[in-house]
Amino acid sequence: MTGWVTVAGLGPGAEALVTPEVSAALADATDIVGYIPYVARLAPRPGLTLHPSDNRVEMDRAHAALTMAAEGRRVVVVSSGDPGVFAMASALFEALEAAPQHQGLEIRILPGITAMLAAAARAGAPLGHDFCAINLSDNLKPFSEVERRLRHAARGGFAMAFYNPRSKSRPGQFERVLQILREECEPSRLMIFARAVSTPDEALSTVTLAEALPEMADMRTVVLVGNELTRRVGPWVYTPRSVPA
Amino acid sequence: MTGWVTVAGLGPGAEALVTPEVSAALADATDIVGYIPYVARLAPRPGLTLHPSDNRVEMDRAHAALTMAAEGRRVVVVSSGDPGVFAMASALFEALEAAPQHQGLEIRILPGITAMLAAAARAGAPLGHDFCAINLSDNLKPFSEVERRLRHAARGGFAMAFYNPRSKSRPGQFERVLQILREECEPSRLMIFARAVSTPDEALSTVTLAEALPEMADMRTVVLVGNELTRRVGPWVYTPRSVPA
Repeated sequence: MTGWVTVAGLGPGAEALVTPEVSAALADATDIVGYIPYVARLAPRPGLTLHPSDNRVEMDRAHAALTMAAEGRRVVVVSSGDPGVFAMASALFEALEAAPQHQGLEIRILPGITAMLAAAARAGAPLGHDFCAINLSDNLKPFSEVERRLRHAARGGFAMAFYNPRSKSRPGQFERVLQILREECEPSRLMIFARAVSTPDEALSTVTLAEALPEMADMRTVVLVGNELTRRVGPWVYTPRSVPA
Repeated sequence: MTGWVTVAGLGPGAEALVTPEVSAALADATDIVGYIPYVARLAPRPGLTLHPSDNRVEMDRAHAALTMAAEGRRVVVVSSGDPGVFAMASALFEALEAAPQHQGLEIRILPGITAMLAAAARAGAPLGHDFCAINLSDNLKPFSEVERRLRHAARGGFAMAFYNPRSKSRPGQFERVLQILREECEPSRLMIFARAVSTPDEALSTVTLAEALPEMADMRTVVLVGNELTRRVGPWVYTPRSVPA
């Protein structure tokens, strides 16, 4: 039996947002590896072993997946959203780089609906022009790098999407992010706090930068920031496709 | 009968990348509106009217969709990729802003797999850290705005994804984009030219910025540019999750 590793994006939560390609890979797997709440989304079945693991052990998980595949298992590493956006795909290639003996394995990355695009769709079209995605966590990079990117994104006129805006281990940091945005953008700039989109816990709120509070975000929230042309139409928020000359 | 408008993302091309949510909306529609090649992806059936239209008539299409919905039709506006990324969702809200009589209509935006994430998955994980998406077309914004965003993206250390890199109507512009990148980034910076991902015409090539040529892109290509840490492992390209302090 030939083993393989697939890194698959489960989307933001709803079953209706899982692609048929990902569903087929899950149905063909012998082993599922991933963070506990993502693995919990999958139904057990005979012949399938679930390997849930904790947060912050991404490299262990990636090494385990490669090792099982080398032993002939068909392994799906699950990510929420898209595996290539602040998720497990990069961790797998980091592990592969450190393990030349596994570089002949069959590997596939299967895209999924990433949180910012699910959130944007619920809000309207706030990312309808040039935009950027920034992971606000400073677990894996210095906060000075977050600040540099925020300022360039604002000065470049990008709309923005923030992943991991706030956690219990860094409670004050999102307040600093809001301060930086206030230095760079006008107070009427629109922001969307989108929590747990497509799940029963979904909650969206649109506020101006002047109204934004750190407590509006938690680890299940993706935060969208419009560009200077972003506006409301009825309950919707959208960014026009055009920039006047 | 109550009409509605749904703007749905068909993904980059393969049926296996269409979400069940989008498939359900298409099955429930009376009318499908969209650019000719996207509408051509759908099978005709009794009770369904297809309304294919040409490129660059996005506003006409959006107005037509709202008008039909107001008449009680169930209208799906199809986009390739994700409707909120350089696609029809913003056009619909522009049309809605200009038509207050339609602002009570039921509207839904359904996300899809956008081209840059499908391309990134095929290449490995080149967008595995902070990144931005830029539409290189100057149809709806001055080229000076494209240049401003390119320079801020490069100076902010973002990986980048370029949509609409090159067309027959602006043959010299992508060469200018490459010049700007060469002014801002090192010659060894990795780039991926991903054409028609997930279709029978799919073609991917990874080159350095020094090796990149304007002819490597066309309108069916999405171009990815790594950040300064992006590297190869075997046939794959990935961007590490960490930035050293």
